[in-house]
Amino acid sequence: MSKNIKVWCLSAVAAMMVFALLFTATAGNRQVSAGQDNGYHGKPAKYVFYFIGDGMGMPQINATEIFKGVQSSNDPMYSEKLNFAAFPYLGMQTTQAADTFITDSAAAGTALASGYKTNSAFLNVDPTKRVKYQSMAELAKAKGMKVGIVSSVSLDHATPAAFYAHQPHRNNFYEIALELTDSGFDYFGGGGLLAPTGKKKDQPDALAIAAQKGYKVVNSHNEILNLGQQDGKVIAIQPGLAGEQAMQYEVDRTSQLSLADFTRKGIELLDNPNGFFMMVEGGKIDWASHANDAVTTIRDVAAMEDAVAEALKFYAKHPDETLIVVTGDHETGGMTIGFAGTEYKTAFGKMAQQKISFEDFDKKIKTYRETVGAHGANLSDWLPVLAADYGLVDLTAYDRERLSAALNASMLDKKQRSKDEHSYLLYGTYEPFSVTVTHILNQKAGIGWTTYAHTGVAIPVFARGVGGEAFQGYYDNTDVAKKMINIMGLTQ
Amino acid sequence: MSKNIKVWCLSAVAAMMVFALLFTATAGNRQVSAGQDNGYHGKPAKYVFYFIGDGMGMPQINATEIFKGVQSSNDPMYSEKLNFAAFPYLGMQTTQAADTFITDSAAAGTALASGYKTNSAFLNVDPTKRVKYQSMAELAKAKGMKVGIVSSVSLDHATPAAFYAHQPHRNNFYEIALELTDSGFDYFGGGGLLAPTGKKKDQPDALAIAAQKGYKVVNSHNEILNLGQQDGKVIAIQPGLAGEQAMQYEVDRTSQLSLADFTRKGIELLDNPNGFFMMVEGGKIDWASHANDAVTTIRDVAAMEDAVAEALKFYAKHPDETLIVVTGDHETGGMTIGFAGTEYKTAFGKMAQQKISFEDFDKKIKTYRETVGAHGANLSDWLPVLAADYGLVDLTAYDRERLSAALNASMLDKKQRSKDEHSYLLYGTYEPFSVTVTHILNQKAGIGWTTYAHTGVAIPVFARGVGGEAFQGYYDNTDVAKKMINIMGLTQ
Repeated sequence: MSKNIKVWCLSAVAAMMVFALLFTATAGNRQVSAGQDNGYHGKPAKYVFYFIGDGMGMPQINATEIFKGVQSSNDPMYSEKLNFAAFPYLGMQTTQAADTFITDSAAAGTALASGYKTNSAFLNVDPTKRVKYQSMAELAKAKGMKVGIVSSVSLDHATPAAFYAHQPHRNNFYEIALELTDSGFDYFGGGGLLAPTGKKKDQPDALAIAAQKGYKVVNSHNEILNLGQQDGKVIAIQPGLAGEQAMQYEVDRTSQLSLADFTRKGIELLDNPNGFFMMVEGGKIDWASHANDAVTTIRDVAAMEDAVAEALKFYAKHPDETLIVVTGDHETGGMTIGFAGTEYKTAFGKMAQQKISFEDFDKKIKTYRETVGAHGANLSDWLPVLAADYGLVDLTAYDRERLSAALNASMLDKKQRSKDEHSYLLYGTYEPFSVTVTHILNQKAGIGWTTYAHTGVAIPVFARGVGGEAFQGYYDNTDVAKKMINIMGLTQ
Repeated sequence: MSKNIKVWCLSAVAAMMVFALLFTATAGNRQVSAGQDNGYHGKPAKYVFYFIGDGMGMPQINATEIFKGVQSSNDPMYSEKLNFAAFPYLGMQTTQAADTFITDSAAAGTALASGYKTNSAFLNVDPTKRVKYQSMAELAKAKGMKVGIVSSVSLDHATPAAFYAHQPHRNNFYEIALELTDSGFDYFGGGGLLAPTGKKKDQPDALAIAAQKGYKVVNSHNEILNLGQQDGKVIAIQPGLAGEQAMQYEVDRTSQLSLADFTRKGIELLDNPNGFFMMVEGGKIDWASHANDAVTTIRDVAAMEDAVAEALKFYAKHPDETLIVVTGDHETGGMTIGFAGTEYKTAFGKMAQQKISFEDFDKKIKTYRETVGAHGANLSDWLPVLAADYGLVDLTAYDRERLSAALNASMLDKKQRSKDEHSYLLYGTYEPFSVTVTHILNQKAGIGWTTYAHTGVAIPVFARGVGGEAFQGYYDNTDVAKKMINIMGLTQ
C-alpha cells in the first residue's frame, strides 16, 4: 500500500467516524412537522376520517364500480359509483418517493401521514435518517384530540405505522410495536403485530408492554364488540389471525369482524368533545393487486366503501365539523380495464362467481401437491374446482396450455421452480397455478395487469366536509398531509 | 308455409316498412344540444381552446413528465410537470360509451363535443340513429363566433368529425367530408381527407366542393404559413401526407409544420371581436399507444403540450376572456408506469435514444423482408439498427428469443402469419418485430402495456381561465361538453 493511499484511507475512516458521531448526535433530536396554507382559514375540522386504500388507484375504483353494477342490475351498462367517488371534491396526487418514481408504502405513508418525501422503506425519517417527522396523528393527539388507527393488515405494517412510528426501515417491526405502545393513541383496531417479541423472539412482549402502559388489549369477537369508552385506550385485534397477522380478504370472510365493524367501533370509542382523528387502511387491496387477483381486490375496495359508509353516518350528524378524505398511497399491479384479447369488450359478469381469494386457493394447491407429488398433476382434476371456485368454464386451447404449464410448475418445490425471466413475468413470486387462474379469469372479463409490484401513476383523492374543497387540483402526496394538518388546525 | 306463418311474415314485413318510414321521417329532423347549469353565471368565455389528446390518460401524461425530466436534468428524480397539468383546475371524467365500458373515439367525441352518450362508432346521432346532436362548435358558429378544428390525424377522423358531422358510422368518410364543407367553420388545419371522392372514388371531390362553397384550400408549407384573415374560410392540409392522411409522428417530424404551428395559425385566423372556439386534437397519441410505442406516444403528448403553449400565449393577453380545457377521450394501450420485470425501478433514460416511430421502423422491416425473403432473417443483422434507432443494446437471452421469434413472424406474408390467441396477444395486428422491439425497450424503462385497444379508466380534465373552476370534480365525459356549452353561453 503506497503512502498516498494509506493517507487517503485514514482520512476516509476519520471522515466516516465523524459522520457516524454526527448521525448519532443528531438522529432523533430534530422533529419537524408540515403544514400548508391552502386557503382554508375556517374553524378547524373537529372530526377527521382518513381512509387509505393501499394500492387503490383509479383502475381499482373504476373496476369496483363496474363489478358492483353487474351484481346489482340487469343492465349490462350500469356501473355503481362508490360512495366516496361521489364526494363533492376530487384531486389527484403524485406518489413518487424521494428515491424512486414507483413508491413503496412506507415512503408514501410518510408523505400521506406527515407531509414529507423520503426514501422507499423509510418511516417518518428523512433520506439521511437524521430528522424525524411528526405525523398528523401525533399532532392531533398533542392537541388533545383522540386518535384511532385501523388497518386490515397488521398494525405495525408500513401504512398504519406511518402515523406513529419513526424508523429507518419499515421492517423494524419490534421497534415499531414499541412506538405503538408509546403513542398514547386511543384506539388501534384490525390486524395484529408481526414481531411482538422481536426478530429473535427474545424481547418482552410488546402487547404486555402496551398493557403496562394502560392499553386494554382484546382479541375476541365479543370483547371487541363490547368495548366502550370506559375501557380507555384499547388495542383490538381480530381473533384467529394467521402468520401475516392481517384480517381475512373480504371475499374469504365469513363471520369475522369487517373493516366497517372496526371503523364503527372506532367512532364509538373516539367520539368526544375535543374531537378525533381516525385513519382507516384498506391494506389488502394492495396485497390482492400484487397477486393480480381482480375480484379479491374489488371485494376489498367494496369493504373499504362499507367502512366509509360508517364515517358518512357520523358525518350526517356532524356535517359542519367533520372532514372525510379517501385516497390511496399508490396503484398496485398495473391494473387496466381493457385487455389485448378482449379488445373493446368487458365481461365483468364472468368474475361474479369467484368465491375465493388466491390465498385460500393456494391452500388447495398445497394440499393437492402433497397428495399427488411433483409429477402426478392432471389439469382435469382441477376443472370442477375452477368451475366451482371461479365460475371458470369456457377454456380455450391456449388457456389449457397455460394452466397445465402453471400447474406443473406449482407441483415443484419452490426451490426447484424455474427462476428465469420468462417464468418471473408469468408468475412473479406467486403460486404459478393460482396466478394463472386469476390472470385468465381477469383477462376474459377484460382486465389486464402489468406487474406484481406498484406503479407510478397519479392517484385520486376524494374529500367531503370541512375544508374538503382544498383537496381539489393536481398536487403531490405530501400536500395531502399538509392540507389535512392545516384544516385540522395543527400547523405549528 | 302454413297460413299462420304467412300471416306472421306479412305482419313482420309490414312492421319493418312502418319502422323504415318512421326512421326516414324522423332521422335528422330532430336536432338537440346540451347545456348544464354548473354554477357558472359569469360573462361567457369569448375565446375557447379545447385540446383533446386522443388516447391520453393519466399514464401517458405522467410518463411524459418523467421522460421530459430525464431529458432536461441530471437529477434522476426530476420530472417536469406539463404546462396543462399545472393548470389550476383538475377533474376526472368517466368515458364509457352507451354500449361499452371501453369507448371508441366516435362515441367519446360525441360526448366531448355535444354532451350526449351514444354507441361506439356513432357520430352525433343517438343509439337509435334518429336524433342528431349539435356540437358546441356548431352552437358557437351559430352564435357568431369563429370556429377552428385542428387535428394531427385526418380532418374526417372521429374526434374532429364529432365537432361538425352527424353520421351513423365514423367510417362514412365521404359523407363526413361533405358535412365539413357545409359546416361554415372558419379554419380546418392539420391532416387531410381519407375519401375525398367517396369509397368508390366516383364522387365529386369534397375539396373542390369546399372551394365552391368559399373555402380556400391550401396544402403547401408556405401557403399555410402565409394564410391571413383576408383569406376567409380555409382548409390547411399538411403537404406530403401518406395514405392515412395524418401528420407525421412528432418523433419522425423534420421540417414539416407541427401541431403548435397549426394552432398558432388558427389563433391568427380566428381572433376577432366576436370570439372564437378552437378544438385541437393530438390524434396520434392514440395511434402510438395502440402500437404500444411509448416514446412515440410521449413525443406526441409533448407536441400537444407545445400546442397548448400557443394557447397560453394568447391567454396571457386575454386572461379574463379565455378558457382553455385540456383532456383526453380515453386511455389507449393500458399503459402503466411499472412492469413486472423491473418491479419498483424505472429507467426512462433507456428510452432517450429512440429516434424513430414504429411506423418508420416498419418500413425498414418491409425493405428487409423484400431483400432476404421469408426464411433469410438473422437477428444479428438488426443489432446495429436496434442500437442506432432505439439505443437498445443490453439484450438478455429471453429478449433475443422474443426478438428472433418476432423477426421470423415479420418475414412472413401477413396472410401466412399465425392468427392464434398467443400470437395476437404478442403482436396484435402490428408488425411483430416492431412491436416486440418497443415492448422490450419500454419494459426495460419500466413501462407495461395490456392491450392494443383502448381502456375504460377515468381521464383527467385540466382547465384554466374563465369558468375553469367548473371542471373540478369527478363527472362524466358528457358533462365536459355541457360545462363548456354553458360557460360559452351557448345553452339553448
